Amino acid sequence: MAIEFHITAKPKLKSPVLVEGFPGLGLVGTISASYLIEKLKMDPLGYITGEQFPPLAAVHSHRPLYPARMYYSNRHNLVVFISEFVIPIGAVNELSEKIYQFVRKMKVRKIISLGGIAIKGEQDTVYSIASLPELDKQLEKLNKVQMIKEGATTGVTGVLLARGAIEKYPVISLLAESHEGYMDPKAASMVLETLSDILKISIDTSALENEAKVIDEKVKHVVDKAKTAHTDYKKAQDTSLGPMYG
Amino acid sequence: MAIEFHITAKPKLKSPVLVEGFPGLGLVGTISASYLIEKLKMDPLGYITGEQFPPLAAVHSHRPLYPARMYYSNRHNLVVFISEFVIPIGAVNELSEKIYQFVRKMKVRKIISLGGIAIKGEQDTVYSIASLPELDKQLEKLNKVQMIKEGATTGVTGVLLARGAIEKYPVISLLAESHEGYMDPKAASMVLETLSDILKISIDTSALENEAKVIDEKVKHVVDKAKTAHTDYKKAQDTSLGPMYG
Amino acid sequence: MAIEFHITAKPKLKSPVLVEGFPGLGLVGTISASYLIEKLKMDPLGYITGEQFPPLAAVHSHRPLYPARMYYSNRHNLVVFISEFVIPIGAVNELSEKIYQFVRKMKVRKIISLGGIAIKGEQDTVYSIASLPELDKQLEKLNKVQMIKEGATTGVTGVLLARGAIEKYPVISLLAESHEGYMDPKAASMVLETLSDILKISIDTSALENEAKVIDEKVKHVVDKAKTAHTDYKKAQDTSLGPMYG
Amino acid sequence: MAIEFHITAKPKLKSPVLVEGFPGLGLVGTISASYLIEKLKMDPLGYITGEQFPPLAAVHSHRPLYPARMYYSNRHNLVVFISEFVIPIGAVNELSEKIYQFVRKMKVRKIISLGGIAIKGEQDTVYSIASLPELDKQLEKLNKVQMIKEGATTGVTGVLLARGAIEKYPVISLLAESHEGYMDPKAASMVLETLSDILKISIDTSALENEAKVIDEKVKHVVDKAKTAHTDYKKAQDTSLGPMYG
Amino acid sequence: MAIEFHITAKPKLKSPVLVEGFPGLGLVGTISASYLIEKLKMDPLGYITGEQFPPLAAVHSHRPLYPARMYYSNRHNLVVFISEFVIPIGAVNELSEKIYQFVRKMKVRKIISLGGIAIKGEQDTVYSIASLPELDKQLEKLNKVQMIKEGATTGVTGVLLARGAIEKYPVISLLAESHEGYMDPKAASMVLETLSDILKISIDTSALENEAKVIDEKVKHVVDKAKTAHTDYKKAQDTSLGPMYG
Repeated sequence: MAIEFHITAKPKLKSPVLVEGFPGLGLVGTISASYLIEKLKMDPLGYITGEQFPPLAAVHSHRPLYPARMYYSNRHNLVVFISEFVIPIGAVNELSEKIYQFVRKMKVRKIISLGGIAIKGEQDTVYSIASLPELDKQLEKLNKVQMIKEGATTGVTGVLLARGAIEKYPVISLLAESHEGYMDPKAASMVLETLSDILKISIDTSALENEAKVIDEKVKHVVDKAKTAHTDYKKAQDTSLGPMYG
Repeated sequence: MAIEFHITAKPKLKSPVLVEGFPGLGLVGTISASYLIEKLKMDPLGYITGEQFPPLAAVHSHRPLYPARMYYSNRHNLVVFISEFVIPIGAVNELSEKIYQFVRKMKVRKIISLGGIAIKGEQDTVYSIASLPELDKQLEKLNKVQMIKEGATTGVTGVLLARGAIEKYPVISLLAESHEGYMDPKAASMVLETLSDILKISIDTSALENEAKVIDEKVKHVVDKAKTAHTDYKKAQDTSLGPMYG
Repeated sequence: MAIEFHITAKPKLKSPVLVEGFPGLGLVGTISASYLIEKLKMDPLGYITGEQFPPLAAVHSHRPLYPARMYYSNRHNLVVFISEFVIPIGAVNELSEKIYQFVRKMKVRKIISLGGIAIKGEQDTVYSIASLPELDKQLEKLNKVQMIKEGATTGVTGVLLARGAIEKYPVISLLAESHEGYMDPKAASMVLETLSDILKISIDTSALENEAKVIDEKVKHVVDKAKTAHTDYKKAQDTSLGPMYG
Repeated sequence: MAIEFHITAKPKLKSPVLVEGFPGLGLVGTISASYLIEKLKMDPLGYITGEQFPPLAAVHSHRPLYPARMYYSNRHNLVVFISEFVIPIGAVNELSEKIYQFVRKMKVRKIISLGGIAIKGEQDTVYSIASLPELDKQLEKLNKVQMIKEGATTGVTGVLLARGAIEKYPVISLLAESHEGYMDPKAASMVLETLSDILKISIDTSALENEAKVIDEKVKHVVDKAKTAHTDYKKAQDTSLGPMYG
Repeated sequence: MAIEFHITAKPKLKSPVLVEGFPGLGLVGTISASYLIEKLKMDPLGYITGEQFPPLAAVHSHRPLYPARMYYSNRHNLVVFISEFVIPIGAVNELSEKIYQFVRKMKVRKIISLGGIAIKGEQDTVYSIASLPELDKQLEKLNKVQMIKEGATTGVTGVLLARGAIEKYPVISLLAESHEGYMDPKAASMVLETLSDILKISIDTSALENEAKVIDEKVKHVVDKAKTAHTDYKKAQDTSLGPMYG
């Protein structure tokens, strides 16, 4: 089960903020993290492997990449974790534990998780849950942000939040209203605007919607290839000896 | 498989009673324990984690919480265990063992489990099973209570009862007649009235039915969000690489 | 996987006979063992736990009980093992090994397993398999008994028989013709009559058929409650977070 | 997973041949091995147990037996392994390794595996694969035998062959054309005639076809009882607590 | 889970190239590797075993063989890994790790993986992914080769590529456009032509298409037999005790 963090760079960070962008509704986490990495010209920090992780390489701009990666920016004092696959439920607890180890080691001062939530009204709201009451107060002041009063949130973000609440560690979950279809650049744009407000870092999110088609193409490419690869795999198993293990 | 009890407070309890409220028919255990914690203004004692437990945070009154938690009241000399998810069957034996370790360590003098049972007549009865014959005599005297003569009871409560019978340790299971629908505040009210009779602690259960709608809203919120979260999770897995592990 | 035998009494037995009554066709093993324990006024010897065993308490005469239990009678120099659940197939080999350890420790002189078999003719025959040829000769003389020449028998009894044959240890399987419906008191009566002939212990089996309705009620109660409990459990899982593990 | 060979006799064998008869198409392996053991009046050598093996006893001529057994004949310098259940795929590698350990310990000079293959023409051919080219030459000379040029063979025989080819150890697989129905005494007869030619041991195979009905009855008995036992087991699980583990 | 490399020869290689031909779309990897081994008259280097690998022997030219094998050629300074079964997804990470261990031990200077990809146009392109930018430049110059810009690739090749990119080790994936049907000799021919261009080794690929029917027959034989063997296995399980484990 051993999940491992492989650090391949020597960043100069001082109590950075950690942004987490894992897949979810509308692929908001992955798209917005991907866009953030590109716009802020962040550098590769390393990658994450795990026995339960899918064995595959993503290919971006001709380069094969591990699908769960870490980036950093000395300038913005920022770290981003991005995953191009859904974290298997059995790996969530261990990955969360490993993230807290990273937080302690790197003296991360705050975790912000990006994600999507089913649209409730006009797709104009970013819902939020925070581990500490003082964070609620700050977040409520932000444009378009609404704190969730009653509910539940699953996966790595859920575990990070529950533990943050107990250990008085600041964790913020931002959930932009998102279409449930393939991916939703508008939701990604909304969540990045809120992130921009929190971090006081200017992120040109208008570009995201303008480039929506390119990004769509790019991400669609990844997901489609992944699906095709998966289908091919299935087919190969069907025409070969795979069913023996069925 | 390691289930762990995380104690985060220093209660002053003298041979307290332990009340267990886990989900079941009509969500009676969880609703009544939740109401009890609120009405008696109990303090957080800690939380329970386990590898087989669902990785999620419940959100109540804006605060993220572990879904299996412990509360205490020095005033009422009481401990309550509440879970917002069904204990996975493979974790029942270990959790029961851990509860008995807690019982010994905290010198708990009695365990009372709250739950629901399918309605047999007028929904006016709280059925009960006790680990010791002397408890039967006390319980039979209570209003609306009827001891179960022949039957079987599963889950943590079943294991606590069977072991209590062998080790001469007092364990009581209270099962209020409950509708099988979403949740049943009336059954929760009934089981709390009986608990009130046993503990000689006044619990304003009328409030429970009056506030039924609010509670309903609140719990519905949790369960619905949990479901939505689950569905989102599924969807994300479907549009990403999840099926690779299918 | 550790199956454990918990001995809670200090019997005075001299090379006793061990009777095994586990569920099977027509619940013959469990019903007849249950009746035997009652009629011979046997005392509790202990209980058996296992990781793969269902976590539940049976309730009989108001008392919660482990569903796999041991009883003894000094007067009749007898031990009975009874289970109210089907032994999970993955636990059969280990339980059989543990039974042989018990046999050696307690100097058990013979194992007799009670069970049912599909009716072939008039429901007047108790089929039998024995581990040793000399047992065949004794059994063939008994009324209504017919030795099985060719066949196969599964579960704990099968493993006890195969090992008994190799180690020259006496093991007898008695299989009364039984209806496949809910339970069959007549088959239980037949198998107990044969047991009575072997042990030279008088067992008033006529009572079994007379009390059929009461017993039926009692056992039905257990099995029904067990089923209901199971259904409730399922329902609770469906309305809560259970499916997350589906 | 530990598979164990239990040796219960002290044979006097000098580099014996090992014949393996496991179930497969038309149950050819099991039927022919069973017939061989009877006709050559072979003695029990022991039995094989494994955690993944089905927990059951076969009953033949009134005696309960482990379903995977070993026999020997000093006179014919022969060992036979027979199984009355299909080797679970997860146990194949370990069992093959244990067979090679046995081969080394007992100085077995050759392994011959008996089995069936789907009929391609007139049901007059025994197909064969051998681990060494020199065996091919010997086998090609035999009546009705045809070597397989291209193909694949699964299970214990496959693993024994592949390893034999690497280690230059003689392994022969004989696969008689067989009907896919219940069992095929003619195919068993054919495979035994070829075995007779290889071993230069006279085996009265005509008897096999003459006694087809008796053998059919006998084996049918085993398989049917096994099935019934299985069905009973399933039924017992359905009417008891089994589904709890479903 | 232990995957083991069994080396059975003593090759004289100096920083050889390693070609990997595992099954996939159109069985391109396995067919082209098989043809390469034959045309270059490569010698057996050994075989690979793993607990999760299917227990079977392939039979080629009358000889039983392990289905995952290694070959070498001193003359061409080449090693080929071929598998006739799809690598089970749970074994991919460990096998990839073992390949890198082999690479270090044998001082392999480059890994080239052969495979197929769904046809996008005229079936005239070999798509490619490389671990290093300098490889891209070399590959782009080759006839018919087109580098993949955005996408994802699964299985052993994916893991080898992602790791190669991090460790600056040269890994090339060649994916010929292939029909999804049974197997596609034209795609195998295309991928071998590109391999020929990279290695500067002449490979008479025209023969591949001419011999298409023979190869088709041969491979069909393997896959069909494997399927039949699988079906027989299933059938044997159905008529024997197999379902007990179902």
